[in-house]
Amino acid sequence: MVFEQREFDERMMRVRAAMEKDGVEILLVSDPCNIYYLTGYDGWSFYTPQILVVSLYEDPIWFGRQMDTLGVKMQTWLPNDRIVGHPDRLIQSADEHPFHSVGELLAREFGKARRVAVEKLSYYLTVQSYEEIVRGLNGSEILDGSLLINWVRFIKSPAEIDLMRQASRLLEASMAAAIDAAVPGARECDVAAAVYAANLTGTDEFGGVYTSSPAFVMSGPRTGAPHICWSDRKLESSTPMNLELMGNRLRYQVVMGRTVYFGDPPKALKDLEAIVLDGIDATLDFIRPGVTCEEVENKWRQTVAKFGLAKDSRCGYSIGIAYPPTGGELTASLRPGDTTVLEPGATMHFIPAIWESSQSLVISEPFVVTEDGCECLCEVPRQLITTH
Amino acid sequence: MVFEQREFDERMMRVRAAMEKDGVEILLVSDPCNIYYLTGYDGWSFYTPQILVVSLYEDPIWFGRQMDTLGVKMQTWLPNDRIVGHPDRLIQSADEHPFHSVGELLAREFGKARRVAVEKLSYYLTVQSYEEIVRGLNGSEILDGSLLINWVRFIKSPAEIDLMRQASRLLEASMAAAIDAAVPGARECDVAAAVYAANLTGTDEFGGVYTSSPAFVMSGPRTGAPHICWSDRKLESSTPMNLELMGNRLRYQVVMGRTVYFGDPPKALKDLEAIVLDGIDATLDFIRPGVTCEEVENKWRQTVAKFGLAKDSRCGYSIGIAYPPTGGELTASLRPGDTTVLEPGATMHFIPAIWESSQSLVISEPFVVTEDGCECLCEVPRQLITTH
Repeated sequence: MVFEQREFDERMMRVRAAMEKDGVEILLVSDPCNIYYLTGYDGWSFYTPQILVVSLYEDPIWFGRQMDTLGVKMQTWLPNDRIVGHPDRLIQSADEHPFHSVGELLAREFGKARRVAVEKLSYYLTVQSYEEIVRGLNGSEILDGSLLINWVRFIKSPAEIDLMRQASRLLEASMAAAIDAAVPGARECDVAAAVYAANLTGTDEFGGVYTSSPAFVMSGPRTGAPHICWSDRKLESSTPMNLELMGNRLRYQVVMGRTVYFGDPPKALKDLEAIVLDGIDATLDFIRPGVTCEEVENKWRQTVAKFGLAKDSRCGYSIGIAYPPTGGELTASLRPGDTTVLEPGATMHFIPAIWESSQSLVISEPFVVTEDGCECLCEVPRQLITTH
Repeated sequence: MVFEQREFDERMMRVRAAMEKDGVEILLVSDPCNIYYLTGYDGWSFYTPQILVVSLYEDPIWFGRQMDTLGVKMQTWLPNDRIVGHPDRLIQSADEHPFHSVGELLAREFGKARRVAVEKLSYYLTVQSYEEIVRGLNGSEILDGSLLINWVRFIKSPAEIDLMRQASRLLEASMAAAIDAAVPGARECDVAAAVYAANLTGTDEFGGVYTSSPAFVMSGPRTGAPHICWSDRKLESSTPMNLELMGNRLRYQVVMGRTVYFGDPPKALKDLEAIVLDGIDATLDFIRPGVTCEEVENKWRQTVAKFGLAKDSRCGYSIGIAYPPTGGELTASLRPGDTTVLEPGATMHFIPAIWESSQSLVISEPFVVTEDGCECLCEVPRQLITTH
């Protein structure tokens, strides 16, 4: 198991406390990040109907595809009789939904289920699965338990921060490999290949696992679109390339963005860099326990506004356990209105990136809040990177 | 654009015909495979609320995150005024859902929306998004349009098959790289690194893109669990390793599995190989236009039953456009009860894999149905691969 039993016990205790506070007796967990957090199960089985049934007193029950039960047994602390498979004939079948028997399972294990919550924000609870659960509960009210566990995950333990530091080593290796491979004439896909190879091979001590999103590698006119895939396009002199890369160690993920320029950058881009770096320095200096997310964003915005720069999207978000399709924990964001108070152990991605069709610049930093400030997790030169 | 406008026009025509047949006037498309199929848009933006509004007569409307509108403009044939962004402050915000304005959008563009369908099976239509759509339509009935477009995609055009052939070249390169890297003493993560590097670099003519699932690389006792991730485990002599790899060219994906044995395989595994290969040969010989999916599965099952082998999960599924979390098209499966008739241009992954805790063997073949039979898409030796 990745963590000691004591750590899993503590997590269960904190989740149950949050359930009691919200008046939830049974929480049906679909988010694979949350299933992993509570049990250690790390299988790519969430594309079929799968839930972890968490109640206030009994051990959780994993309910998913029969062929994946062995993986759950290998990876988790759950007793074998709490690992329940549904038959393979139901997978992607139009005849009967695998959750047809969820109501029965809940009735058998927990009596008349009351105050059941599901995660309505989870990608892996389809509307079909949800309707099957509603049917199985005979129409009793279903609460929305979205983000209940995500918020419990917000402050990381020392063991979790250790994994995020390991993930940072993977990310540093990936970033170095990308910059090495990125020479005019190479294709975006060659840069991506170098990134993945470095990321997964990692170090002699440990390797990496798949990340929550593909690496983002866009060059030239494609830098204005933040979420398109790399292509076969060849890198050209006197053009920029944007990188947004991740490192993932046992599902704990860090992420970082950098813009690379092939040649001497135009003055407008250098000027933008100077403003952004000032803003980043001022903001990182400002972060410490007790400040709120909106205060952090405000520090960034006020600093760069002096130079006429404005960015209307959020400039950061909480990070930690990550499965596709996103590395964000969906909880705290650095933006106006978010009054979340930062505490030691919070880990975030500060990404005050500028994406415009005329010009874009990505310089970001993943950080952990410490006792008296914050610490950047990755050591990669904080600048517009130029190569010749 | 990846395809000619004519091909997109034909796709729209066929989807609209299916909508009319099912009595659907407006289809809200969430599945990124289906959005890509109809428009060519290939952005990693489906983790935020995003839909393509398809109506019977007007051009579709893409509705998603503001910062991704540039990517949609770059990649699709949609007129600019049919690309609508919602503001970034709504992303992962507890205050207001980005789909708050969907009802308004539909009312403005289509009048009183009637017979609206959503894809209740889509991973990227959360229950929260769904409930927001229901609210916006003032409680008028919402139909389930799941798989409507997936079924239109079942038979591939020549241009699509060309891309799947290119994806097969990527897969062959990945498989060769994996077998090269897999030597006792290497770690599973090193094999994964070799796979990704070969897959993405591809050939001099074209590279690969991210696949719908991670490569599966499991060795030793981990081979019994089909969907867990590679680890730092070192490969050992006289043990097996299972590979399930993908190649993805511009989102068209093929997939293949092979078991590798380090050393002389035990007799039981060689015996199993002989049975499985007999079954595969007989089944591939049997496939031709006009046969049904359940007949194909029956051929496999009857052939191997003679030798006492039984497998209770399906032995294949339709493949084509693929985004995470699955490479299956969720339509036809090779299993009892599936009466889908195979026609030229159908592409499937035939995977009669055996996963048991005592022994597992994966030998699979992606194939395309031709005018008079079927053709395997990848050239990789069809056998239990042994290395010394």
